Order: sequence, then structure tokens, then C-alpha cells
Amino acid sequence: MKNTTEYAGFIPPRHPLTHVMGQTLTEKILDDHLVEGELTPGEEIGIEIDQVLTQDTTGTLVWLQFEALGLEEVQTELAAQYCDHQTYQFDFKNTDDHRFLRSAAGTFGAHFSRPGNGICHNVHKENFAAPGKTMLGSDSHTPTPGGLGELAIGSGGLDVAVAMGGGAYYIEMPEVVNVRLEGELPEWATAKDVILELLRRLSVKGGVGKVLEYTGPGVETLTVPERTTITNMGTELGATSSIFPTDDQTKDYLERLGREDVFEDIGPDEDAEYADEIVVDLSDLEPLIAEPSMPDNVVPVSEVEGVDVEQVMIGSCTNGAYEDILPAAKMLEGRNIDKKTEMIVAPGSKQASEMLAREGWTAEMMAAGVNFSEATCGACIGIGHVPASDSVSLRTFNRNFEGRSGIEDDNVYLCSPEVATAAAIKGEIVDPRDLADELGDLEAPGLEMPDQYIGNSESDLIAPDQAVDDELIKGPNIGDVPLKDPLETEVGGEALLKMEDNITTDHIIPATQDILMYRSNVPKLSEFTLSRVDDTFAERALEADGGVLVAGENYGQGSSREHAALCPMYLGIETVLAQSFARIHKANLFNFGIVPLTIDEETYEKIEEGDDIEVVDDAAEAVRSGQEEFTIRVNDDWEATGQLDASEREREILAAGGKLSHTKQQHDEGGAAPADD
Amino acid sequence: MKNTTEYAGFIPPRHPLTHVMGQTLTEKILDDHLVEGELTPGEEIGIEIDQVLTQDTTGTLVWLQFEALGLEEVQTELAAQYCDHQTYQFDFKNTDDHRFLRSAAGTFGAHFSRPGNGICHNVHKENFAAPGKTMLGSDSHTPTPGGLGELAIGSGGLDVAVAMGGGAYYIEMPEVVNVRLEGELPEWATAKDVILELLRRLSVKGGVGKVLEYTGPGVETLTVPERTTITNMGTELGATSSIFPTDDQTKDYLERLGREDVFEDIGPDEDAEYADEIVVDLSDLEPLIAEPSMPDNVVPVSEVEGVDVEQVMIGSCTNGAYEDILPAAKMLEGRNIDKKTEMIVAPGSKQASEMLAREGWTAEMMAAGVNFSEATCGACIGIGHVPASDSVSLRTFNRNFEGRSGIEDDNVYLCSPEVATAAAIKGEIVDPRDLADELGDLEAPGLEMPDQYIGNSESDLIAPDQAVDDELIKGPNIGDVPLKDPLETEVGGEALLKMEDNITTDHIIPATQDILMYRSNVPKLSEFTLSRVDDTFAERALEADGGVLVAGENYGQGSSREHAALCPMYLGIETVLAQSFARIHKANLFNFGIVPLTIDEETYEKIEEGDDIEVVDDAAEAVRSGQEEFTIRVNDDWEATGQLDASEREREILAAGGKLSHTKQQHDEGGAAPADD
Repeated sequence: MKNTTEYAGFIPPRHPLTHVMGQTLTEKILDDHLVEGELTPGEEIGIEIDQVLTQDTTGTLVWLQFEALGLEEVQTELAAQYCDHQTYQFDFKNTDDHRFLRSAAGTFGAHFSRPGNGICHNVHKENFAAPGKTMLGSDSHTPTPGGLGELAIGSGGLDVAVAMGGGAYYIEMPEVVNVRLEGELPEWATAKDVILELLRRLSVKGGVGKVLEYTGPGVETLTVPERTTITNMGTELGATSSIFPTDDQTKDYLERLGREDVFEDIGPDEDAEYADEIVVDLSDLEPLIAEPSMPDNVVPVSEVEGVDVEQVMIGSCTNGAYEDILPAAKMLEGRNIDKKTEMIVAPGSKQASEMLAREGWTAEMMAAGVNFSEATCGACIGIGHVPASDSVSLRTFNRNFEGRSGIEDDNVYLCSPEVATAAAIKGEIVDPRDLADELGDLEAPGLEMPDQYIGNSESDLIAPDQAVDDELIKGPNIGDVPLKDPLETEVGGEALLKMEDNITTDHIIPATQDILMYRSNVPKLSEFTLSRVDDTFAERALEADGGVLVAGENYGQGSSREHAALCPMYLGIETVLAQSFARIHKANLFNFGIVPLTIDEETYEKIEEGDDIEVVDDAAEAVRSGQEEFTIRVNDDWEATGQLDASEREREILAAGGKLSHTKQQHDEGGAAPADD
Repeated sequence: MKNTTEYAGFIPPRHPLTHVMGQTLTEKILDDHLVEGELTPGEEIGIEIDQVLTQDTTGTLVWLQFEALGLEEVQTELAAQYCDHQTYQFDFKNTDDHRFLRSAAGTFGAHFSRPGNGICHNVHKENFAAPGKTMLGSDSHTPTPGGLGELAIGSGGLDVAVAMGGGAYYIEMPEVVNVRLEGELPEWATAKDVILELLRRLSVKGGVGKVLEYTGPGVETLTVPERTTITNMGTELGATSSIFPTDDQTKDYLERLGREDVFEDIGPDEDAEYADEIVVDLSDLEPLIAEPSMPDNVVPVSEVEGVDVEQVMIGSCTNGAYEDILPAAKMLEGRNIDKKTEMIVAPGSKQASEMLAREGWTAEMMAAGVNFSEATCGACIGIGHVPASDSVSLRTFNRNFEGRSGIEDDNVYLCSPEVATAAAIKGEIVDPRDLADELGDLEAPGLEMPDQYIGNSESDLIAPDQAVDDELIKGPNIGDVPLKDPLETEVGGEALLKMEDNITTDHIIPATQDILMYRSNVPKLSEFTLSRVDDTFAERALEADGGVLVAGENYGQGSSREHAALCPMYLGIETVLAQSFARIHKANLFNFGIVPLTIDEETYEKIEEGDDIEVVDDAAEAVRSGQEEFTIRVNDDWEATGQLDASEREREILAAGGKLSHTKQQHDEGGAAPADD
């Protein structure tokens, strides 16, 4: 019998590294971390995770799930909890979340970065990113450290919780694409223009299912801060991750950080085989800009010159580093920004803020009329500095989806700090080369790194051995995460709701602000479950102590949010009968221990709301054994068939009561140490 | 016949200054600006206003009213519009407001201070405050420049709009109280402790109807930044204003600002007579703290040592100057703040931010773990950095009313920057003298001024002659202010609503956040009028094109908000019949041209909702002529009497259609120049 711990993902000892000819860097790192599967594109693989990263809007639920696992300590080499999204703390719930996260990091052994210390990707890059490591993070821009040769992947929070618990991360093996860089960036063209050029060519779907691996002679012309701008915004291509090899630039950067000890010389084999190759000649690039309202809506800046600009924002995880803000400061020295244009700098980290302040650049920018924000994601996700109505905002951020800035019908352009600053000076969009011609004394600032980066205050970045908490501090809005019991013999209950085709996860759990602020509070959040379909549902489900959902085609389409499965689970839903399921939501149903059974149209038509549904088979045994057809008995009167389409791993998870319960069960069986040692 | 322009408040030439023996400084300034009345406490006086100040939460309505006056230019010596409350711009309505305010300042001739440039009181102090001037401001902490011998008074927005239009400001002559300062502050005691001591002794009602005038040998020991901390927070005593004489300290401060030209040597006569005298020996003071949740709940810090502190905030108009933040920076040099305590510095002005950054102090504080905010009122009014639940926040602000921080049941303490910083270092409340003993190397930072203050960027503080706008820019949430026609011959209409006793202004216009964000939009805001009594009222009133309100005793009690009269006026209400009126609301009804008639209980009981009400007399003529009894005809069936109790000035205003219309009418009659020249 196959040892179940392999499915659970607890880490067996690493495979002895058998050198396979012609590996890409991505394959080398994956191979080095592989615990299950083979490196064949499209096949599921399980990999060991070295580092995890969480932030404040996703982190609370991750830690509540970790708590529910009953573990005492983080099992990964390193875990880091950042507070960066809601650092303005508009509501006490934000401040409570931050306090809870500090207490969770302290209690379970993670690093804790305080609100104001900076954006997770920036602070992680400065403090922890290391070549050859794997990282999982509950944020879509997690791939940023790919600029230092770390393979970092964004995922849902439950995957992060499981990884922290010592579980492997399962993913379809991506295709590895070679992005070959040639030449060298000319004056006024920047790393931002490299990724904008890729977006222009490949579109926002061009990277789906792929890792973009950067190679070629152009690589060595780019510093690490430039590389991380590119890997960060690879997310906008839809890529699973983006990665650069390491070299003298990497070593140099780590030395300036005082972290040269983590350097490893890694890269692809010379005869590595890639699924595809894209060639970018850096010397052909010029200042580019993404027009509203999609990051791939890219044109040369010169094509949109003359558009009035009311707001310029420099910052975000893409362009919020010291090296990104310094060029803006140099351009502004001795000048004033336009009186009709507000310019806000939101540094990516307090390290950047402190260095710019220490060197006098902050004062210089203030003298030019710049407004300095705390280090935060903030405006990038519509929190603060919402543009005025019918106005244009130029931002160095990574996304300009319509409405993301906090106002519908917004006009947000994405560009480099140089292009943004030029617009702030002129009050309208202008190619900085043209502005330089016009002004006569405006020089291309280029890229400059500090000799030595400054470290974080030990109050701002608290190491696990310096932690001040040894128990969780939960404000009134922070609830527990329910842990489901293993699947029972009998599954079923009342058909509490019968829904039509194409129910989305937005129907299941709306994403409006007034509801999402309860994301740390599953009981409270669950009150809104399916309220857009039937606002009595949540109450009825709780009263019924469980039950069944019935739906038509394509149930659970839309956003991948896990709450759309977690909340029904909390309310006691045991099975969903639908004509078909959306792919990601179906995976989430497995993860939260709800049995998704496919029914035919006739059955769908015949079942009525209020009917009594009974799955006749011994559900637990049937799921485990691989049984595909389940008999459904309705009102003790008639019968139909429900299909269960699930992999062996999914069946194990489902039978255990969901991924959390499964992980916990495996852990309890194996003890504190990995089970297969 | 009395010349109506005197009532209108257009400024006749100043009285020749006849020296009256024994005048206080307050009396001297008032005498110098008097246009009506006599300086007898309790009597109404009209004074000329030299400067006006508006901020972003009150300013939009002020400018809409100014626009409604039909004036082309501000008539005061100086007007300044600041953006300081909502500078995080959570919503596009905030950003739209700021843009509108820039356009209004440019169009009508006011200085404009951009969001991020700082708090009105701080920026005004740095740039415009001048001895001997009078100022009116639509913010309760307007008295701040009293520290430089300016007599500054907070008022409602309409008073400010009228003053900008050239009208006098009418106020009951306050009593002038002598606060005699002796001795000198010992180490670790600060200006904040002076005002906290006064609050401890006098309570938050101790200054009502009074101007506090500081005298005595202790005055010269205090720098201007210290004096403005005291005058600023005099508002918490309920004082009409607070004022210091000028001296070498004033001259020195103005020189460092590069504004020595505005210095005037002013003070009380030696034989000035005061209504009361309070003696404070500065040398007796020690570090004080106001416990939750009232500014007069003051005790020595030593009495509350040991209370855990989760948040420390330095800033606000009270203690947000360079001189306030520098001591905190010195105390933190080479130290870290406690890991459980977040410390946020929100400078009062960008001038302070820039100087601290230029000198390296910002970097030093960041290295200690401090989070730097934009220069804003922000957290002081519950916008951002809301404390965590069940936690203590120490703030250098001026108010700690329950819930003001943004969370109910908060625990906000008020103290000096030194006491706040000591708590941030220790993680709990501690007398800084005890902390100095404990640490051994912590010295009292004292107060230090820069040799030369830095000026504002010309983009951040735009002078009228540098303005970039010549027309108003109104976002979709910015409406017009209605201007009422003069009172007509016939007044009356349907009794649209019959209310009970004790209807508050909260009933008339609720103050909840979701409603108040429409403060720039009278048509939208009016939709909520009396919705707490009858949510069909606003719609019915608009459809009826006018009508009458009927109420019992004490109609309009509570907050003084002007919208409670403005919105009914917008809906067409012509008269309110009530058994009695609350004093301030009745004045607001005059100001917005609604006739308040008192009826007896029998009449109240007999009138029913829906009745047709007709004021039989020629209303316009009767109001003007001083008639007190008005005949009310109901349903063309029976008659009753309504009493009009109003001064001559109030009758003029009412007949003109309200204060705005009255001012406009006077202005139109008199032309652009004051009418009585």
C-alpha cells in the first residue's frame, strides 16, 4: 500500500541530485525540491518549500489555519509575515489584524515586519531572498525574488499554511520559456520598459502556465533591483514565476546588503531545453507606458504626449525601491512639480525611506512639492490617494485594472519612475527625452545603488528569537478557523438552496469592502454566504446543522477565492450537486472537505429545494476506494446517480475532511518531525 | 432711517483710535477692528476681519457660499485655503474636494495649501500669522496664532464666507481673563503641561465666553512655538480665543521665518482691567497627562506609570511643529522603540517634515522604528491609525473624546511629545524623569528652534498671483449652494411634517459618515433631511415646492450645524411653527431665511400634518417693520397667532432671504467697494 504521507506532502529526504542533462534553472531548483511527480509540463508535482511569505490581507486566515493544524512551530526554513496593505489602519480591525499577526509570528516562529516597515516583496528581497531557494507566498507578486535566482510562487493562503506545516506544494509542472536578453538599455529606458515590452508582445495571458527564465548577454547589464522589477511584474503576464540566473551582479547586490553568505552561483545548463524562446534587444527599448486600463495596453510614451496629468505616484513593489525613487529625486532637484499635479512617493520599504532621508533626497523632493507617504501598498490597491474624478493618474505600479485605484472609470497609466517624474514636472505626459531637450539641463539619472544598504530596526523587523509574544492576541473581529471532521459514512441533508447555471464565487461570497473586512472572521463572514442568491440561506443552513447545495452548470466560476468553499463548509454543507463545476472552485471544495457530485440535467430538474438528500453509499469508504458513481436517494422516494471525478490525492484530502484536516491528521500520525525520515 | 449697510456688516472706516484707559490686548485689537457695538461683555459687537482660514472639510461649503454671493474676489486682506483633514484621500470625493478648493482659491484670490503641505494652523502660523490682526477660521483650533498676538476666532462656515465677502463678524463681547504666568518651566515640563494644567484647574467649560490673555514674567520664557501650543489647545477650555502679547520672542521667531516685517509690539495696558485672573507658576509644573476620555481629565504622569501602551502618536496642530518633533528625535537617537508599541509621527507641516529630513532626524527616527506619516490632521479626527481594540494610545493631540480616534471605547491619553516618546521607548506610560533615571543617559531634550525656517514649495503653497485656475472645477459630488430670494409677501404652504418635542439637529441632518461625505453637495445632502423622522419628507417637500414645518418644544436642539437650516431651505421650507426653538438653531433659521414663529400649545395640538397654512400678513413688510404677532390661517378655516422674536439685524437678514442673500444684496447695492466709504 502506498504510504499516505507521500500524499500528505510531508517531506521525504531530498532525492539525491542526479544530474539530468540540459536542465533549465527552473528545472534544477524544482528537481532539488521535488518530493513527488516528474518534471513533465502539465503533470502535477509536489515540491518542498524553503520560505513562505504572507501579508496582512491574506495572512490572518493563513495563521488561523496554521493554528487549526495544532502545530507549535513553523516547519519551513523561514517564514515572514509582513504588514503592508492596510497600514493606514482606517479601522480598528486593521490594527487588530496587525497585532494578531505579530502575535502569530511570535508564537509560531516567523519573522514579523511591522506596518510601516514596507511592502512584503521589497522587505523580503532586502532581508531574506536567496538564490536556489523555493518560496510560496500568499500574494500574487511573490515571484519578485526571482531577480536573485529564488523560485518564488504565489498561491492561496491554505497552500501557504500547509507549507508552513511542513507539507509540499502541489502544482502542475509549468513550461519553462527562455527570455533571451541582448544588448544594453539606452538612456531613459529602464527595467520597467523591459517588462512593459513583454506585456506589449505577450499580453496579460502570455505567461499562463509558464516560468519565464531570463538568459542571454543582456542579463549581466541589469542590476538586481532592475531584475526584481521585471520578475515582480511577470505576474501581469500571468506567469507562474519569473527567474534570473545569479552572477556578479547578484553577488554584488548581496554584498551591499551584508548578506553575501547566501550567494550561490546558479543558472541553466548550456544545453538546457526551453519550451519557447523570446528575444528582447534591450538597446531597442525606449520609454513605454501602459494606457488605461490593462497592463498590456502598452505604447511608446511619445505616442501619448500632451495628456494632462493630475496625479503622479511613485512606489509599489514594482518600483518602490531606493534605486527607483533616487532617479525621481535627481530629476526633481532644484525644480518644482507642476501646480496642477500632485506627486506622492510611497516607498516600498522603510529601508528605502530611511536611506533617501539620510542622504537628503527626501528633503529635496519635499522642497519640489512631493508628498511622502508611509511605506505601503496603499494606493496600488485603492487604499488612499484615490484619483479625482475624470482625471489621469500616472503610476509606477504594476496594475491599472479599471476601478482598482478606488474610483470607477479611472484613467491610470503605468510607467517608469522617470516617465512619471517627467509628467509631474511638466503637468502632462511627456517622453523624458523630449523634456530633457526642452529643459536643456535635465540629465538621465541612470541607476545608482548605495554602497551599503541600511538594516531594519529590530522593532520593525522582529526575528523569531526576539519575539515579544508567545500567545495569539485576537481582537473581537478575529475568529477561529473551523477544522472539519473526516468524511462520515452518511452524507446528505436538506437541499437548502437550488441555484441556476453560472453561479460565481462572487455570488457565494461577495467581495465588496463591507464584507471583506471580515476576512479574519469566518463565522461573521459566513453570514453573507450566498446572500446575493437568498439572504435567508446562511441562517437556514446553521439551523439545519448541515445540508446540500444544488446547482446547474458551471457552479463556482470566477475568482479563485477560498472563502467560497470555506464558508459553506463552516455552515455545514456536506455536498454540492451540480451539473458541472468550475475547475478552481471544485479544487477548493476538495480542499475544504465538501463532496462535489456531478448530476445530469434530469436529476437537476427533478430535485426541489427542501428535498431530503441522502448519499446511499458509505461515503468515506467510497471516496477513498476510488468509486466514481454514487447513489443519491431523494425524499426516501427516488434515486439518481452522482459522479465523483477526483484524483487519488484529492480523494485522500476529501476523506480526511479537507486539506487542513488532512495535513493535521498526517502530522498527528507522524509526530512533530517529518513522517518519512 | 438707519443705514442698512451697517447691519449688513460692510465695513465703515475704522473708528479713530481713541485711547481708552486700561485696555487689555484683546480690547485693543477689537477696538481697532470694531464696526458696531461696544466692548461690553455680553453685548453683540461687529468686527472687521483681516484674515480668514478654511480647511478641506469645511472649506468646500464656504466657497460654494462665496460663489453664491456672486463676488469676484476675496475682500479680506488675506484668505488661505488648506487641505489637511482628508489628505489620505480615501475616496475620490476627497480628491475632488481638494481640486475644487484649489480652483476656488485661484478663482477668488486665496492662498492654496495643497494636501500634504500641512495642517492649516501650522502652515498659517509659519506663513501668515501677524500680530494685531483679526482672523476668522472655519475650524475650532483657529485661535492658534494667538501665540503671535493675532486675535483668531473659530466660527461656522457661513460667517467665514460673509467675512470673505467683506462683512463684519458679529459676536458677543467676551470676558477677558488674565492668565498670569510666573517662573520658568523646569526640565521635562513643556508648554503642553501649561495648557493641561489649565484644563485640570478650569475644566473643558472653564473658558466659555472668554478670551484668555497671557501675561506676567513667565511669558518671555516661552518661545512662540510653545505659546501656540497653549493658544491652540485653549479651544479645549471652550475659550473664544487665547492670546499672548508680542515681545523679543515674537520678533525672534518672525525673523527666523523671514517675516520680521509683520512684527508689531503689542500688549495690554499696564492698568488693564480683567474679568478674572489665574496665576500659573511655570516652575511648579511637571509632566502631566490627560486620561481617557476628556482633555481635562488631567493627572501627573507619575500617577499612571506602568500602563501598557500599544500606540504612540506625535503630531497634530498642537504638537506637530519642528520644535515638537525634534525632542522626540533626540530622545530616540541610538535607541529602538518597544517592539509592542507602534510609534507614528505625523508632522504638522511639510516645513517641519522637510527640516527634520534635511537634518537627518527623520532617518534617525526611522532607524528607531518610527513610522512617518504625511503631514495631516488624520488620526486626530479618526482618519487612519485607529487604535487596536482594548488598547492604549498616547497622543500629543488636543482631544481624546471617546470614539474620536475611530474606535468606540478607546483609551486615548493626551501628553507632551517627551512623555509620548518615553512611553514608546519603555512600552508603557512612564514619567520621563523616571525613565531618565532608569536609562542613565537620557537627557532632557529641551526646546530648540532652527536658525532659519525653510519656505514652502511654490507648488505646495500657491499664492493668489501664482494661481493656475481661473474657474471652479466641480466633481460630480460638488453641487451649488442655493441662494434664497428675499422674503415674499405670502409665506406658507402645506404642513409637511408635524414633529414632537426636542427634535435635534441630528434628526434634521444626521452626522453619520455616509451622509456627511455629501457636505459639498447640498441637493444630495438634502435628501437626508429629517429622514430619521420621516424618510418620505425630503421627496414630499421637493414635490410640494415648499411648505411649513410644525414642531413642539425645543426644536433644533443639539449641534450647531448650519446644514440643519440650509437643507430645509433648499427643500423650500418657508417657515417653522414651533412651541419653542433652541437658541443656535433659531439663529441659523434667520441666517438661511426661514421664518421661525412661536405658537402656543393649543395651536400646536390643533394643526395636523397636511393642513394648509397661510401667514396672513404681508410677511416681508411685517418682518422688516418689527411686527411681533403674525396671523396664521389654517385650511382657510381657523386662525391662530405666531410670535416672531427677532432683533433688528435678524429681521433684515430674514427679509433679505438669509445672511448670504443679505450680504449679496448689500454688496450689489454698494458695489465692489465697502458701501460706506
